[in-house]
Amino acid sequence: MAQCVLGVDIGGSQIRSAIFDIEGQLLFRTQTTTPGESGPQAVIDSVLDRIAQALSSGRGDVAGIGIGVPGPADPDTGKIYYPPNLPGWGTRSILDPVRDQFGLPTFVGNDANVAALGEQRFGAGKGILDLLYVTISTGIGGGIVSGGRLLTGWRGFAAEIGHQTLVIDGPKCSCGQRGHLEALASGPAIARYVIDAVRDGRKSIVKGLTEGPEEITAAHVAEAAQQGDSLASEAFQTCGMYIGIGLANLIHILEPQLILLGGGVTNAGDVLFDPIRSTVREHVMSEIFQNIAIERARLGDDVGLYGAAALALVGIEG
Amino acid sequence: MAQCVLGVDIGGSQIRSAIFDIEGQLLFRTQTTTPGESGPQAVIDSVLDRIAQALSSGRGDVAGIGIGVPGPADPDTGKIYYPPNLPGWGTRSILDPVRDQFGLPTFVGNDANVAALGEQRFGAGKGILDLLYVTISTGIGGGIVSGGRLLTGWRGFAAEIGHQTLVIDGPKCSCGQRGHLEALASGPAIARYVIDAVRDGRKSIVKGLTEGPEEITAAHVAEAAQQGDSLASEAFQTCGMYIGIGLANLIHILEPQLILLGGGVTNAGDVLFDPIRSTVREHVMSEIFQNIAIERARLGDDVGLYGAAALALVGIEG
Repeated sequence: MAQCVLGVDIGGSQIRSAIFDIEGQLLFRTQTTTPGESGPQAVIDSVLDRIAQALSSGRGDVAGIGIGVPGPADPDTGKIYYPPNLPGWGTRSILDPVRDQFGLPTFVGNDANVAALGEQRFGAGKGILDLLYVTISTGIGGGIVSGGRLLTGWRGFAAEIGHQTLVIDGPKCSCGQRGHLEALASGPAIARYVIDAVRDGRKSIVKGLTEGPEEITAAHVAEAAQQGDSLASEAFQTCGMYIGIGLANLIHILEPQLILLGGGVTNAGDVLFDPIRSTVREHVMSEIFQNIAIERARLGDDVGLYGAAALALVGIEG
Repeated sequence: MAQCVLGVDIGGSQIRSAIFDIEGQLLFRTQTTTPGESGPQAVIDSVLDRIAQALSSGRGDVAGIGIGVPGPADPDTGKIYYPPNLPGWGTRSILDPVRDQFGLPTFVGNDANVAALGEQRFGAGKGILDLLYVTISTGIGGGIVSGGRLLTGWRGFAAEIGHQTLVIDGPKCSCGQRGHLEALASGPAIARYVIDAVRDGRKSIVKGLTEGPEEITAAHVAEAAQQGDSLASEAFQTCGMYIGIGLANLIHILEPQLILLGGGVTNAGDVLFDPIRSTVREHVMSEIFQNIAIERARLGDDVGLYGAAALALVGIEG
């Protein structure tokens, strides 16, 4: 039987698990609702169940397990630190229970970090050694592959790229600080731009897409922008500009060959990518940074699952 | 004879060369004025002369050569890209002539990048695998050691950490862009803060330290601040605040265990370090980032020379 790996993606709403061969071919897949409200032990038990089910499927000879988790994670201890979407978790390890039960080489990483590895191994970044993956949805996060290796930092907390200050004393971020990229350009920030303007009396077709202004999401704004709505386009121009400046900063710091953008907000397409790309071109310090490509990520909703599998593959390869 | 390496630091004003043993003990040293105005070939010839002189000293069995260069450098080709302090250089390689003449394993890196490696191997960062080195002088640059390896990026142009935008449309940077950390907090920016205020009629003892306001440097501002001058202290508070925000950004992106600050401006001591440290503490997104140490670099003016030697050591060790 061909050698395979098992990837587990623990999300706030779903726990997904799948067996992949070393080419990233999906051989078996299972998922369940995350019992987050039932507390940490219920989540751990559910993860162990998913893994047991996948292993008992008999598809492939599983040589290692990779787990992507929704919070800062220490790769050495497998501890997850206060994941916002897993209430009461604290700093428990997910590594110990999995390794104890199944006795397989097991590796843990933050979901956005391992997503970068997933795109690099199986997605839009194949063969690229220096790659930046950015996810733009409720928040802005990411993962950094540098010289072919995942950059995790001292304790696994690196690549919090949404938390760079772009406007000192700017709008409040989910983390409590002010003026971070995430506070200026995440999905909720894009929606907020339009909600505030509509409240101030600006005209926009986005009003007709929801029951009330507070229901407006970035997806509605994207729909309106694609239909030529000027307020919606302005929201993407402004937020795309902030993302572009954040990416120019990251280009100067990391010099990736390729930047991949994923997450729900990127479904907006050109209305988002155009201002991002033009801002990056205008803001990089030198022509030598002009030819760094900015593309859409390819693995969609399953990027965390592929990433977890990639983490396992990299781990067992040493 | 014990195995040794040769480090060469090509600066805008001096070319230094030295032989070190693997513990970083300096065995032989030579330096000369950089003949930058005589053109690139004169600089290359001078580098070859320094190396020949060091090798003929007979101190140690030199197993490899490391070269730190004052501009973006591609480690694979050894090309230096338009170094601002070497007029007319263009994109010549320094690797080829050195390797051709001496037949030794030779490695090239940007001077601020290799300085990080120097501090990690021989200075204040011994044994630290994730380290950020920041130099604050005429400009703001740096080097990143991640997982024990130098982060150089796709083509060797990474770690341009002074070129992160902190104030959109802020003051003009040496690179031509606006609002970069370097434009807000380098030595000239600190001096400019005081010069402008003095011109506007603010009182300061710094006026008595120079012939005229335009002669004021960051060193004068530091001297005045240490004597309790309130304008000078304010300049360090403001510029230290910008550096602190820039470091908080880098902490979120890279999660180093230790940040080392070097370069002439750090001679100011506490008047600079106090606002930097307090700003970082206030601006990191989470308590987990509070215990990242910010210390002074230890290798002083020779950091580039030690860094070049460290680059050679890492290179020959594979």
